[in-house]
Amino acid sequence: MNEKKFKLYRIFLIIVYMSIPAAIKSQVSGNDVLMFGAEIFIEPGQSDQLIEDWFKTLSDHNMNLTRIRMFENYMKNKSGKWDFSLFDKAFEYAEKYNVKIYANLFPETSFTDVGGFKFPYDREHLNRVAEYIRALVSHFKNHAALYGWVPINEPGGGSIRDPLAREVFAEWKNSQEVEEKNPLADIHHFSFDDHLFLLYYNTWYLEWLTREIRKHDPIHPVHVNTHQIFENVAQYDFPAWNKFLTSLGGSAHASWHFGYFRRDKYALAMSANSEIILSGAGKIPWLMTELQGGNNIYSGYEPLCPTPEEIAQWLWISVATGSKGAIFWCLNPRMSGTEAGEWAMLDFQNKPTKRLTEAGKIAGIINKHEDLFSRAKPVNSKINILYNKESLWVEHRMTPGFDNNKFEARAPGAVMKSAISYFEAFSQMGLQPTFKEFQEFDFEKKEYSGQTIVLAHQIALPEKEHDKLRHFVSNGGTLIVEGLTAFYDENVISIMVNEFPLSDLFGGNVSEYFFEKDLFNLELSNGHTLKAHAFKGIVNAKEGEKILGTQRETIGTINTFGKGKVVWLPSLIGIGARNSNNYKPLLDFLMPFLDISNELHFESCQEGILMKNLKSGENMISVIINKSKSNREITLKGFHQYKKPKVLYQSKTGKINKNRVTVNSEDTLVILWN
Amino acid sequence: MNEKKFKLYRIFLIIVYMSIPAAIKSQVSGNDVLMFGAEIFIEPGQSDQLIEDWFKTLSDHNMNLTRIRMFENYMKNKSGKWDFSLFDKAFEYAEKYNVKIYANLFPETSFTDVGGFKFPYDREHLNRVAEYIRALVSHFKNHAALYGWVPINEPGGGSIRDPLAREVFAEWKNSQEVEEKNPLADIHHFSFDDHLFLLYYNTWYLEWLTREIRKHDPIHPVHVNTHQIFENVAQYDFPAWNKFLTSLGGSAHASWHFGYFRRDKYALAMSANSEIILSGAGKIPWLMTELQGGNNIYSGYEPLCPTPEEIAQWLWISVATGSKGAIFWCLNPRMSGTEAGEWAMLDFQNKPTKRLTEAGKIAGIINKHEDLFSRAKPVNSKINILYNKESLWVEHRMTPGFDNNKFEARAPGAVMKSAISYFEAFSQMGLQPTFKEFQEFDFEKKEYSGQTIVLAHQIALPEKEHDKLRHFVSNGGTLIVEGLTAFYDENVISIMVNEFPLSDLFGGNVSEYFFEKDLFNLELSNGHTLKAHAFKGIVNAKEGEKILGTQRETIGTINTFGKGKVVWLPSLIGIGARNSNNYKPLLDFLMPFLDISNELHFESCQEGILMKNLKSGENMISVIINKSKSNREITLKGFHQYKKPKVLYQSKTGKINKNRVTVNSEDTLVILWN
Amino acid sequence: MNEKKFKLYRIFLIIVYMSIPAAIKSQVSGNDVLMFGAEIFIEPGQSDQLIEDWFKTLSDHNMNLTRIRMFENYMKNKSGKWDFSLFDKAFEYAEKYNVKIYANLFPETSFTDVGGFKFPYDREHLNRVAEYIRALVSHFKNHAALYGWVPINEPGGGSIRDPLAREVFAEWKNSQEVEEKNPLADIHHFSFDDHLFLLYYNTWYLEWLTREIRKHDPIHPVHVNTHQIFENVAQYDFPAWNKFLTSLGGSAHASWHFGYFRRDKYALAMSANSEIILSGAGKIPWLMTELQGGNNIYSGYEPLCPTPEEIAQWLWISVATGSKGAIFWCLNPRMSGTEAGEWAMLDFQNKPTKRLTEAGKIAGIINKHEDLFSRAKPVNSKINILYNKESLWVEHRMTPGFDNNKFEARAPGAVMKSAISYFEAFSQMGLQPTFKEFQEFDFEKKEYSGQTIVLAHQIALPEKEHDKLRHFVSNGGTLIVEGLTAFYDENVISIMVNEFPLSDLFGGNVSEYFFEKDLFNLELSNGHTLKAHAFKGIVNAKEGEKILGTQRETIGTINTFGKGKVVWLPSLIGIGARNSNNYKPLLDFLMPFLDISNELHFESCQEGILMKNLKSGENMISVIINKSKSNREITLKGFHQYKKPKVLYQSKTGKINKNRVTVNSEDTLVILWN
Repeated sequence: MNEKKFKLYRIFLIIVYMSIPAAIKSQVSGNDVLMFGAEIFIEPGQSDQLIEDWFKTLSDHNMNLTRIRMFENYMKNKSGKWDFSLFDKAFEYAEKYNVKIYANLFPETSFTDVGGFKFPYDREHLNRVAEYIRALVSHFKNHAALYGWVPINEPGGGSIRDPLAREVFAEWKNSQEVEEKNPLADIHHFSFDDHLFLLYYNTWYLEWLTREIRKHDPIHPVHVNTHQIFENVAQYDFPAWNKFLTSLGGSAHASWHFGYFRRDKYALAMSANSEIILSGAGKIPWLMTELQGGNNIYSGYEPLCPTPEEIAQWLWISVATGSKGAIFWCLNPRMSGTEAGEWAMLDFQNKPTKRLTEAGKIAGIINKHEDLFSRAKPVNSKINILYNKESLWVEHRMTPGFDNNKFEARAPGAVMKSAISYFEAFSQMGLQPTFKEFQEFDFEKKEYSGQTIVLAHQIALPEKEHDKLRHFVSNGGTLIVEGLTAFYDENVISIMVNEFPLSDLFGGNVSEYFFEKDLFNLELSNGHTLKAHAFKGIVNAKEGEKILGTQRETIGTINTFGKGKVVWLPSLIGIGARNSNNYKPLLDFLMPFLDISNELHFESCQEGILMKNLKSGENMISVIINKSKSNREITLKGFHQYKKPKVLYQSKTGKINKNRVTVNSEDTLVILWN
Repeated sequence: MNEKKFKLYRIFLIIVYMSIPAAIKSQVSGNDVLMFGAEIFIEPGQSDQLIEDWFKTLSDHNMNLTRIRMFENYMKNKSGKWDFSLFDKAFEYAEKYNVKIYANLFPETSFTDVGGFKFPYDREHLNRVAEYIRALVSHFKNHAALYGWVPINEPGGGSIRDPLAREVFAEWKNSQEVEEKNPLADIHHFSFDDHLFLLYYNTWYLEWLTREIRKHDPIHPVHVNTHQIFENVAQYDFPAWNKFLTSLGGSAHASWHFGYFRRDKYALAMSANSEIILSGAGKIPWLMTELQGGNNIYSGYEPLCPTPEEIAQWLWISVATGSKGAIFWCLNPRMSGTEAGEWAMLDFQNKPTKRLTEAGKIAGIINKHEDLFSRAKPVNSKINILYNKESLWVEHRMTPGFDNNKFEARAPGAVMKSAISYFEAFSQMGLQPTFKEFQEFDFEKKEYSGQTIVLAHQIALPEKEHDKLRHFVSNGGTLIVEGLTAFYDENVISIMVNEFPLSDLFGGNVSEYFFEKDLFNLELSNGHTLKAHAFKGIVNAKEGEKILGTQRETIGTINTFGKGKVVWLPSLIGIGARNSNNYKPLLDFLMPFLDISNELHFESCQEGILMKNLKSGENMISVIINKSKSNREITLKGFHQYKKPKVLYQSKTGKINKNRVTVNSEDTLVILWN
Repeated sequence: MNEKKFKLYRIFLIIVYMSIPAAIKSQVSGNDVLMFGAEIFIEPGQSDQLIEDWFKTLSDHNMNLTRIRMFENYMKNKSGKWDFSLFDKAFEYAEKYNVKIYANLFPETSFTDVGGFKFPYDREHLNRVAEYIRALVSHFKNHAALYGWVPINEPGGGSIRDPLAREVFAEWKNSQEVEEKNPLADIHHFSFDDHLFLLYYNTWYLEWLTREIRKHDPIHPVHVNTHQIFENVAQYDFPAWNKFLTSLGGSAHASWHFGYFRRDKYALAMSANSEIILSGAGKIPWLMTELQGGNNIYSGYEPLCPTPEEIAQWLWISVATGSKGAIFWCLNPRMSGTEAGEWAMLDFQNKPTKRLTEAGKIAGIINKHEDLFSRAKPVNSKINILYNKESLWVEHRMTPGFDNNKFEARAPGAVMKSAISYFEAFSQMGLQPTFKEFQEFDFEKKEYSGQTIVLAHQIALPEKEHDKLRHFVSNGGTLIVEGLTAFYDENVISIMVNEFPLSDLFGGNVSEYFFEKDLFNLELSNGHTLKAHAFKGIVNAKEGEKILGTQRETIGTINTFGKGKVVWLPSLIGIGARNSNNYKPLLDFLMPFLDISNELHFESCQEGILMKNLKSGENMISVIINKSKSNREITLKGFHQYKKPKVLYQSKTGKINKNRVTVNSEDTLVILWN
């Protein structure tokens, strides 16, 4: 099926779906209802009573969605014949309690394989997967409880050295156009074939799985969950996926996936994670597929048990970023092996924990306002934090190969952390920036007045993107650039050396980067002091206004370009602010360049507070979270057209009085405006 | 030879031995005399004079036992023929100076192999070892200086992937009964074949070596030394070994083996190490085979030179735990390669160090009281610290596979350190708990009143042990349970999930474990505060008295069961006390549950002091060690039936006045009571 | 060509050279002129204009020397035929701007290979290298701009497991005389074949490369650059190299090679690095081949950008140690891959940085005084810091194989750091010690009065060296010995155990080493306190004066032997002083034993200051550097015969008034005396 056929097919599916009773409808469009739930882990040795109880418990907590891992290992009897009885039972109870099931394909693998293999080993293995899909999909496709398929758990992180990978690589490589090179004239450079192929191969396999499912079930939605997003996003080709997926999702477990963050920043991490998926999903809906539900002991990078308040924060953040609900991992703990007795929302006696009751309470509120939330759309400010895959690849490639590297700027993570630091800075203003891969931003508009793009330490910028940036700025956009952004192109050719092709746009070129130290003061001639990390860039300005340091050295430029402008400060001031845990100086520097008069935001920088907003028809829904240690009062700006705010949810005792909000430490305040 | 024949054979040997003149008798029963010495390292290049001097030095220091590594490498002349001359010489001087030799088999290996290989590589290699044993044992078996054989140095830590191992594995696996499984009904789980086989294979090889020796020498004792006991004990099947060994031993080098301890805790570590061997030996005698004698430079994990006071502490602790003496490693340093010039009790001029003279002085005192000490038996309190192999295996299996794990509870060692913490706590009360593998405890008695078992963070408890615990408690025993004890069974199936089979005994089940932080306060409603590590368990109590936290949450139970009771607090309060280096709060919590009125102990918790006691006929011998920085006065309890205490040994100036002891910092006070 | 023929050949070459016009003469003798420059990195994609500019820039900055990496990868056209056009262009511009080129052979290798392979993989590969040399050398040998050849970049660090290595190893092994061993009488020991062979193989390959060059060009000099000298020196056989090399060189990049030092010690590190090369070069001249020229980002162990002051310090230190100039790495940055945009002396706009102008200014001063500097010879004090390869090898061999070793004395580096600590101590007295491998010291003189040798923690001393030391001391020399010096011989046989063969010379033997702690006070009975690291040696004195500790223990001896004496303190007091960053106590202890009345030096210990001197005819040139944080005034001693000091160079505002110098923090003051 080629791309065009796929598009037609998607339209066909949506039509088919519109004609199906709402009860069995799953999320295929942005206006579908939200669904909540928790994964029920089905494995041998569970009593019927237990399984029934779990479905009933979900239902009792306003949760009508679950996800089940469809272990091929548990679908064959002693003589090796297909036997779906274990899962049939689960589907029956699901139907009885009106719970829908996302069936997660899980072909045969070792008991020690916690997350499932990411690619089949060889073609014979691929064929075995196809046969499993045939048997499984054929069996369950007509079950009333079936909500949709998850073709693979958490793609990303697989090996590209196995036989099937090598076979697909060879085909892929042959299909590439190779431009002829002159060895004595063309610049030699690193190969990024491994990164490019992994990007391709993840899509190849996901699409293959989807086609195999479609052979037997052309109707039900296909959803997949990303994971470890701040690293794996470099492997995900969302625009390609969106052509065959029904909806996009993600696993966002604090214990596994938020290693770039401290615990008091997990809400912020969830916000960034959600924005990445929202942006990646594009026009298809998205759903948070896995949220950490309980305590972990031996598994996970960082042990923790979420508080009910954290459960509420994560859930509301997902919803406020447009997620069509959420599924927790997991309702009941698995009994054996890795993760045994961990992660669950039920206690060991299968009683609901406060985490579950809090999630159920929230699901109940949202279900009660089904119409309001189903039509709600996240309201982003016009600030767009862009990262790009090439920078992630190049950073990975350039990292020193020895162990005792002492500086973040020289380790994988600096590219993403730089972007995150701006996301966090603006979040502390109550602004809700987008968080997009470069390709996901719409560079084809005619007018960008009021729009801002931030390129924070995006070290590798392909030449083909230059004109997009010129188009954006010349049509009114504001471009904020920092760190070693555009130091390389996508092949690690340093484009700042000799003629910098972006000097017209940026207003000059860097003359040199100087390593200073881990955290240093970048003092501006106007008395302002920013914190910066590792490298200080000195600008050779050609045009525009210079930003001067106290030694009269040019440390940045403000360059008017067409109708817009570029603010360029080529030092790592994002990570500098992040590591000093004080965004105020950075915001004081940046805010004068932005027009936020029409944005929803806080009156001033609020350390530890974040706000996200959903617009639904004439209503606005505001989610405000206080991760600081103290209760806080905040003045909201930009809500003048909305009236009669009322508290839809809170875990503590906050309140709103006109545009004045009081929010307790750890509280999530959800406000509905008319 | 099957097990039954071996038993008969042991009886035969003991009879044979009883009829041999005492002079050449070695330790075959619990009433044999104590022997002291230091290993003489024999290697090419040593002059006759030197060798003679070493034996004379031993003899001059009341030491009549040595151990010699019988290098096959040094037993062949240029043409490859057997030539025992180097070792013949040593045996002759030994005879001359009345020193007995434990001949330590050391078949051919690389010069770089410091400790010797743990398993032959393949069957051909095994045959070569057999031929070496034939030649060696035949040659020396009738020598008057021969005391016994050590068939291998420090078993444990070998590879199970070599050809011989794979061959024996296949036989072992075939011999296992495999219960048929229903893939759709039985709970799937990890395999522990590697751990189980390693346990088996160590025994297999040790028994094979013993049989090979026995082919040529049916008389002389066979002794083996464990090492790195706090880790390797998971590989040792002592009950199986005791069927063919004459005596059990151990290497207990602070530099190599006490990595779980700081230097000021090495005396405590030696005490725990000794108790493990005492318990493992069961009915056969034990002897400390290697104690660190001198300074290490490049070898060893932790460089140090023992002080004479430490030498005295380690020696007396071994003796007070029932060791039939001790051999230091080593008298003279090896001259070349790894350990060259290290570890010795002689200085580089072959003069005795203070360490040797102190050890010789102690040997003299004990020799002088030969009859007293030969009949002396360690007096343990009725407190038994149990650990089990399954917990050690499961902990190893569950440890996260990444590097930056920050919490002890998630790393190998937490199981053993938890047990050690209780051993140390009770030691600070002057109590002398046993330290036993679960299987070594006698669960077949009819009455356990006054007995206590501690299960500290023993995470994996096989179902077959449940009734043993019920039997113990219902017949009067007190069971103290903490940490994640019994969270899993031996297959990492979490038995607390759903129906906890021990809830009748423990008084309920854990509802959840919550990760808190590295060291946190566990506050009880009665005002008591314990320190705990990492995880806090909340109990869903069914029966018995609740132990409440300040939030009225149930953090433990006290459950009467039959004639006994269970005190259960499922948080890691042992490691909590250990890491805060303050056992007083833990003891304050525990002591009310124990009856120590008939025990030998201190009046109160004494940080840094430990006491061990030996009973010999009507006499009691007390060893009291002060590892604190200051001199201390301690009141002893439970000695009312013993009179006229007199100081048998001290390194400093302590004294005893009735039941009031004064003991200097670093001193070891040995008191004889009538 | 055998050794004798090579010698004759060298003489022939020198004669040939003497007859060549000075303009094209390169450095073949100690009186040749100094040359300065920076490496021009030639790669495809550079415009003619750029290349011309680079040569012009060099020329404009008094720089007439460059080094070019002659990439085979960039010497073949699309059809695989030789095409030297890229490099022809560079040679033409070089000629135009009167810049000479050291052509650095760089046979075909992967783009990811930053420094070039160290040995060919197999014989076929070797043949390909020969063919490359043939083509390259034949093409360029007659070019007027050719200065000489660098046959390999940075030898050292190659693998000895590849097929060619195994082949050469077999030949080498067969050529060794094997003394017959008696397995029962001779002491067994480790093999050091790997270290010995690597030493041989580096020379083998370097000589092979030189011969291949000589086949086609018998005239031009051959120069090679060492690197990572403090570690790699154990692989370099300088006496063997000097038979076929024209001059010796080195790469000394702070970012890569000074890991044993903090940044404020880099000047000292450069001094030690230079002394090692000076000593290694023996009678041939030497030239600093690579000095770090600019900022590094992802490459290098430690990111930094040299300040202009550091550039001046490094350059002057090299010159003051006799270097015939220096070449910076690099003028222009490479554009692509590893190091892209890093390390350069030009900024990204190809404009000279302050680093380049400062270097150019210095080159100008030296060019202006061409005659003065060309005849200048470094003036070392009569203090000789000796290290030996055997100690480096043994230390490497004995280091514990586990990760968490906590003590420097047990890790590679302690041998070299100990030597460095004495080098630094004497440098703080303004003395300029030599820094020599043991074999490089002249032990064949008849008189050593006033001479001092320091053996600091040189743990392995071969017996064949003993008489050399006796000769040195008995003829008037002073020998200072510390740490574990001579604890082993070169085979890790501990020669202190039993009869210490050097007791006649040292005045006794160590009785024991005791591990104390990382940094401890070594208190002398005379009230003096030294800092020491890890181990404390106690001496069993036989002769001479005892150095006593406060417990009356003998911690050293002062032994008169013939006309000289040995001061022996077998604890690590060098590293102790270094790690406490205070050399004063160590100098207070040592200076009374030395006669420096005829030396150039400071009046007192000057923390952070160093001085190096060059004698040129009747003139003296003093280089004084202040690495402390404050401006300092220093009184110079020993310059009474020199008059009229004038400042030849300074980066700041220092001055000299008779023998009284004022030097600013970070300044380099160069003084010319008549």
